[in-house]
Amino acid sequence: MTERFGERVRAVLSTRGPLCVGIDPHGSLLQAWGLPDSAAGVRDFGLRTVDAAIGRVGLVKPQVSFFERFGSAGFAALEDVLRAARDADLLVIADAKRGDIGTTMDAYAAAWFTPGSPLEADALTVNPYLGIGTLDHTFSLAESHGKGVFVLAATSNPEAHGVQRARTIADSGVDVGQTVSGSIIEQVSSRNAQVTPAGHWASVGFVIGATVEWSDAGISPFAPPAPILAPGFGAQGAGPADLSARFGDAAAMVIATESRSILSAGFEALTATIDSRVAEYQEALNG
Amino acid sequence: MTERFGERVRAVLSTRGPLCVGIDPHGSLLQAWGLPDSAAGVRDFGLRTVDAAIGRVGLVKPQVSFFERFGSAGFAALEDVLRAARDADLLVIADAKRGDIGTTMDAYAAAWFTPGSPLEADALTVNPYLGIGTLDHTFSLAESHGKGVFVLAATSNPEAHGVQRARTIADSGVDVGQTVSGSIIEQVSSRNAQVTPAGHWASVGFVIGATVEWSDAGISPFAPPAPILAPGFGAQGAGPADLSARFGDAAAMVIATESRSILSAGFEALTATIDSRVAEYQEALNG
Repeated sequence: MTERFGERVRAVLSTRGPLCVGIDPHGSLLQAWGLPDSAAGVRDFGLRTVDAAIGRVGLVKPQVSFFERFGSAGFAALEDVLRAARDADLLVIADAKRGDIGTTMDAYAAAWFTPGSPLEADALTVNPYLGIGTLDHTFSLAESHGKGVFVLAATSNPEAHGVQRARTIADSGVDVGQTVSGSIIEQVSSRNAQVTPAGHWASVGFVIGATVEWSDAGISPFAPPAPILAPGFGAQGAGPADLSARFGDAAAMVIATESRSILSAGFEALTATIDSRVAEYQEALNG
Repeated sequence: MTERFGERVRAVLSTRGPLCVGIDPHGSLLQAWGLPDSAAGVRDFGLRTVDAAIGRVGLVKPQVSFFERFGSAGFAALEDVLRAARDADLLVIADAKRGDIGTTMDAYAAAWFTPGSPLEADALTVNPYLGIGTLDHTFSLAESHGKGVFVLAATSNPEAHGVQRARTIADSGVDVGQTVSGSIIEQVSSRNAQVTPAGHWASVGFVIGATVEWSDAGISPFAPPAPILAPGFGAQGAGPADLSARFGDAAAMVIATESRSILSAGFEALTATIDSRVAEYQEALNG
């Protein structure tokens, strides 16, 4: 039987630590690495990053937009990067932030979750603007293949407050209810509680920025445990020491993704940079 | 100088009418059309639909997820479909609902708007969950190339209410303000007012479902005029007669997209089906 994604994440976090290396072949990084600004360049960039990640971390997160920039040739490059990472038993989170309704959303889920699909990944980030209910089939399809989903819940960019901290309104029309972020986490957790075996981690988790203040964002602790994909470590200001400070009891569920902070060290320094960040997280969690 | 997208839409709507043919190569439609469930199948499906649309309507809307399902080969098929449609002077709206922050969002914009890019389209649908501010560069990049953007504002699926009808809260923390949908339209319109020449249509428009009740959704009439991409005509229940009934004074800005209702007629009946729908819209608008 296919192992559930939540349990795979739990195992990886406990053996390898929380660091997830982002694969963001931004134009300026390609240049800094001496690679062409082309599909061939993003392929090389991705494969080199995967090579450096193998044996050092448990997860990688390719940022799909930087491959999409080169159209079908960029997606062919991404397919090679996904395959190399999965063949090396890295857990691969495709950061595509897809979101749609009905059979349209199902087609995205099929693209990223179907075993043998050219874009097969271990997990996908999704966008809940069209309603959590529109993602139900995506959650089920992911789980049926041992895959995972990360629902955008609360991001750390200030422009996001207008939507994410808006308040759901009770039917009476006067109660000021939950924040949108809080409501999304509650709805998903309620579904997770129904489908997750006792003692397991859920396979549908959340994107919660590393610098988000949970109380300001209206986020409460949730159950069952679910992986938290947390961008914002490294370049955006949060450090390994913030893991416990920011996430409290949820710190053990955090996947700390770093992209620019690691990748901007340049290709030659990549493995050393990853090693030193892994050690910092280890020290922060043990100390 | 490149003509602005808003003005291109205005011209097309006045000469060709509001119908936009969706290109949704869903698995079941491929089967009904006798095409393989593969990248070759979605290419044929898309090219046939473009052929049928030429000379009959002014706009087409490929649904990206149905191409993404086949990975890089699906995107290569989409590139052929986009090129065929644009070469025939159809306005092409890539329905991809992309959304991200910073340089990541910029990479999506570059993918779909850069002249000569393999995925070049005339407009892109985008998702505002991460905040309207995160889309500023995308709006500017689109405009600099004569392209357009459609921001998801209010969709007709009931699951969407939790997010889209949540209320923005004033700093005092007690005022129950606008709906998220209403706030998005107001913010974009305020920006449109700054960058749109007097008497022109804006190039950044909205996705508003055909069956959305504007007052329930908290949407007010907006200025300057901006194109409204309205799914929900045809299969989802709204008909040509609903154009004026639902959209009132804004009816002239509506791009009525139909996918399943036209495509499920089958390939042989495609041109006749489009002709008859075009006539129905014409009658409804003139009658």
